[in-house]
Amino acid sequence: MNSKYKVKFSSHNKSGLFHSGQTFLDAAQKLGVPVPALCGGSGLCGKCKIEIVKGNVPPGESDREWLQPEEIERGVRLACTHFITEDCTVRALEEEVEAATEVLTAGKSHAVELAPFVHKKFLKIPEPTLAENPSDLELLLDAAGLDVKKVTVPRKFLANLPQKIREANFSGTITFDENHIIGFEAGDTTKSLFGVAVDLGTTTVVCKLVNLNSGEVLATSSRMNAQRFYGEDVISRISYTIEHDGGLVVLQKAIVDQLNEMLAEIAKEAAIDANSICEMVVAGNSVMEHLLLGVSPHYLAELPYVPVFKKSFSVRASEMGININGQGNIYTFPVIGRYVGGDTSSMLLTLADDLDKTWLAVDIGTNGEMVLAHNGHLTSCSTAAGPAFEGAHISCGMRATNGAVSRVNVDQTGLHIQVIGESKPTGVCGSGLIDAIGSFRQLGLINETGRIVVGDEIGEGTKEFARDLVKTEGNERYLILAENEKKEFTLSQRDVREIQLAKGAIAAGIEILLKNAGLTAADLDAVYLAGAFGQFIRRDMAVAIGLLPKVPLEKIHFIGNAACAGAELALVSKGERMKAEKMAESTKYIEISTDPDFQDIFAEKMMF
Amino acid sequence: MNSKYKVKFSSHNKSGLFHSGQTFLDAAQKLGVPVPALCGGSGLCGKCKIEIVKGNVPPGESDREWLQPEEIERGVRLACTHFITEDCTVRALEEEVEAATEVLTAGKSHAVELAPFVHKKFLKIPEPTLAENPSDLELLLDAAGLDVKKVTVPRKFLANLPQKIREANFSGTITFDENHIIGFEAGDTTKSLFGVAVDLGTTTVVCKLVNLNSGEVLATSSRMNAQRFYGEDVISRISYTIEHDGGLVVLQKAIVDQLNEMLAEIAKEAAIDANSICEMVVAGNSVMEHLLLGVSPHYLAELPYVPVFKKSFSVRASEMGININGQGNIYTFPVIGRYVGGDTSSMLLTLADDLDKTWLAVDIGTNGEMVLAHNGHLTSCSTAAGPAFEGAHISCGMRATNGAVSRVNVDQTGLHIQVIGESKPTGVCGSGLIDAIGSFRQLGLINETGRIVVGDEIGEGTKEFARDLVKTEGNERYLILAENEKKEFTLSQRDVREIQLAKGAIAAGIEILLKNAGLTAADLDAVYLAGAFGQFIRRDMAVAIGLLPKVPLEKIHFIGNAACAGAELALVSKGERMKAEKMAESTKYIEISTDPDFQDIFAEKMMF
Repeated sequence: MNSKYKVKFSSHNKSGLFHSGQTFLDAAQKLGVPVPALCGGSGLCGKCKIEIVKGNVPPGESDREWLQPEEIERGVRLACTHFITEDCTVRALEEEVEAATEVLTAGKSHAVELAPFVHKKFLKIPEPTLAENPSDLELLLDAAGLDVKKVTVPRKFLANLPQKIREANFSGTITFDENHIIGFEAGDTTKSLFGVAVDLGTTTVVCKLVNLNSGEVLATSSRMNAQRFYGEDVISRISYTIEHDGGLVVLQKAIVDQLNEMLAEIAKEAAIDANSICEMVVAGNSVMEHLLLGVSPHYLAELPYVPVFKKSFSVRASEMGININGQGNIYTFPVIGRYVGGDTSSMLLTLADDLDKTWLAVDIGTNGEMVLAHNGHLTSCSTAAGPAFEGAHISCGMRATNGAVSRVNVDQTGLHIQVIGESKPTGVCGSGLIDAIGSFRQLGLINETGRIVVGDEIGEGTKEFARDLVKTEGNERYLILAENEKKEFTLSQRDVREIQLAKGAIAAGIEILLKNAGLTAADLDAVYLAGAFGQFIRRDMAVAIGLLPKVPLEKIHFIGNAACAGAELALVSKGERMKAEKMAESTKYIEISTDPDFQDIFAEKMMF
Repeated sequence: MNSKYKVKFSSHNKSGLFHSGQTFLDAAQKLGVPVPALCGGSGLCGKCKIEIVKGNVPPGESDREWLQPEEIERGVRLACTHFITEDCTVRALEEEVEAATEVLTAGKSHAVELAPFVHKKFLKIPEPTLAENPSDLELLLDAAGLDVKKVTVPRKFLANLPQKIREANFSGTITFDENHIIGFEAGDTTKSLFGVAVDLGTTTVVCKLVNLNSGEVLATSSRMNAQRFYGEDVISRISYTIEHDGGLVVLQKAIVDQLNEMLAEIAKEAAIDANSICEMVVAGNSVMEHLLLGVSPHYLAELPYVPVFKKSFSVRASEMGININGQGNIYTFPVIGRYVGGDTSSMLLTLADDLDKTWLAVDIGTNGEMVLAHNGHLTSCSTAAGPAFEGAHISCGMRATNGAVSRVNVDQTGLHIQVIGESKPTGVCGSGLIDAIGSFRQLGLINETGRIVVGDEIGEGTKEFARDLVKTEGNERYLILAENEKKEFTLSQRDVREIQLAKGAIAAGIEILLKNAGLTAADLDAVYLAGAFGQFIRRDMAVAIGLLPKVPLEKIHFIGNAACAGAELALVSKGERMKAEKMAESTKYIEISTDPDFQDIFAEKMMF
């Protein structure tokens, strides 16, 4: 029972020994081979496809559920559903082409005066004399106008300070923030002071290198979050940390390594020394911030859903293993409550100028977070929308990348689709799904309850081409959305239900926020849509299917990557950072599931 | 030239390979074999004796200078003066018997109210509910009455906090100080809260384990400072860090390892868990504190003698590798100026109640530090007394341990000695040297200028037995102090000069402090003598030879190990610690070498 088997991934030329209690997904994760596992290895998403090149791995029930017969024939299997019972050679199939992914990096913002948290100062240090009672540190801090009692001096900063000061002939540049001494170097380096704003999303990570002397963005790097191989959504990642010994460390390392790669990339692009990057401001959702800080998010996944912390953190980069200046500061935005995380705090900062108006800000990702502003008060909630709008748990679903059907509309002649990258369709992304649902509703193929209608149930006025879009297989009902030479892209009844649940959850959250404030949709001055989802969405369709409240379409604004934009603001302005902290603190969190009307509202909002 | 030779220390069963640029002392230090090197390996103290068991190491000039012919015959050599040129087996000779060393651990102190910097609090944490917006950290801090914005929460504290809280059923003990969260543990552990006061001396280290709930000292450990094998005095240790790559790390590790051994010892003796030791307060001189913190003391050894820092430090134990609670605080007393270090700050704390009087406090160690209090003002200076009073650089010198001649007096019949441990004499310690000089002065064998008189120079009234105490060998003059069956213990003219220089330096420092305050010895209400040196000293002799100012003997008080006593005060009372910081900050430092009268005063004070 203790024997081990060799698994080789020929696609990546990596191999290792595994025991029979481990799956091929475990092996891939251990070896660092990218195999998507949207559901975190629970056999629920059908994405972790590998091909068995050598070895006997008979197909199982899950394979038959998720894979085409010809795939099974070819040796394709779901990596998470097969334990390793002999030596095998396999191939990872779906390595994602990162470059093809369009990651939203810009967002709504406002002009702020440049006043970063971190400073540099060029100074002449008086040379110590015998007649006085000098010490290197005190001479340096005096020259910089800093109070030795009010700043933390890292012990390691002192280790080679005297040599540095003398090599610099008592003239050089000190780097510090309000609370810490960061460094001292010879010469006048005040012009080299940089920071990085990070949008740490569940799906994508964006890093922007900012010149803290000008506020200018010098380079941007965006990538799919490296943690996705351990689970696509936050719940799968939490499960990974619970189910795997050392899983928390694995996930933390994955994101820290990735940030370091991205830092190297942007530093190279801007031709600067990473040591002159003295701060990083990170806006992440609650789970992403827990994982980055190496703090277990376990109890966010269990009733009553408790984060470990809400406060913002300022941690030395060296302690985190993040390759900016070792004494530089890693700042994380405060969590507002449960799943309303630092990314929402950051988004709020971008809307700080509009606090006198009544508005709703919605960030639809794997979770839906929403904030209502009214009379200067902020109320927030989050809803477990599920990852349907990011294309997961949908048979033909995919993210908004090249090949995704992102727009669907219908006219007298038929159904028309737009595909990202204008290529052949390879799946349907969130905005395409909303359009599809809206279009099939228009055609009368989905009724108000979300049921796909067939045969006699189809209304009499329904066009002939529309009738051909409905198909049944056994008891299953499907709607045909698109096809390429190989494949038909359909929405199954289950897919429609997933989307119904997602839109119902978000719409219910919005309704409860409005209800608590004694408002209706008519009172809203604006609806702000943040995040990647807003990028391709059609406002009319989103309102038509009831995802967004019924407001005039011109009141709906896309604010882009607000989390990243807020991180930039907090990076270049200490005042903005303080403002974000205050807004987060004063934002009331509502747990919608405890609202007495929640079940009714949710049921109602699931209807079309 | 690149070949290496094997050196084996048969006495310690340790061996290693060394090249021909390395000395036997280097080998001993590398292998961790204790070979005393009072002068740091400069061939100036004659203490680093080893015996060549196998191998050819011809005696050199230094051996002939420092060793007896029969020792040389036997194969004894000075380890620091011989390079390794072939495979050898050697024996270390002078392994010190630590137990025999009497280390002064008690000191003058005063009663203070128990109010330590570190606290424990047993609390019930409200269990999180769905209706609220809880987080583990914020619930915990609220329950403890702590402001999340005012305390630093170590990231690592959070890593397993949620599990700990739940395993403890939301009831447990939080440990914290004013600035940091230290820990959380199940159950009520408030009774287990301990701290350690450390006197980090150049020669000796004392650790006292204190129950912070009662102020009671539970265990004491005292040892010779493990760094002494790299140099006996502070200057030799600084040289070691300058001359050896990585030398600073070696010295830091030596003391950290030793503190950990001592901690293990006292925790075992008191039967407590080292994790419940939550603070360590360290009083060390400037160089000892630099070395402990891993900060280069290089420029303390070069004009204009600049320490790297003067401020006190509070560093997490885990960062220092010190085995108390990892988040516990390591506090070091502030440095007053140059060589007037944290040990003086700590000593001052023990005298804080006497600030309305006029007094002088003198700590004679390898350096002499002295403080004058007058009208509530404190003035300090240090003098490079050299290690003569600790027995170094004196041919028959040794520390105040078993076998040391500690008292000498003279009557009609002859010279009489007292030996520590009432054994046969093996050398003469500082107090014995002062007595000896005083006695020889009384006998007329040393004149006012410090010259040993011989032949016709001896006064006519001089007793016959006294005349027999003078001896000449070539141009060298000696005074015979004692003898055992093997050896005569003599003071050479050079020895007398060393003592003259040491006492002159200290007396000059005192004189300049008095002069600056416009005072004379007659104005002093008290003279406090701190440190090991004071333990055996005879007040009359110290005044007679001019080491101490001419005050009535009853005004001279021994205050024992004041550094350790002050550390204890600062450990059990936050108020006392603040007081020490304030006293240190307000103590004026005088650089006596820049005083225009310094040369005159020093020359005068060298006279007897």
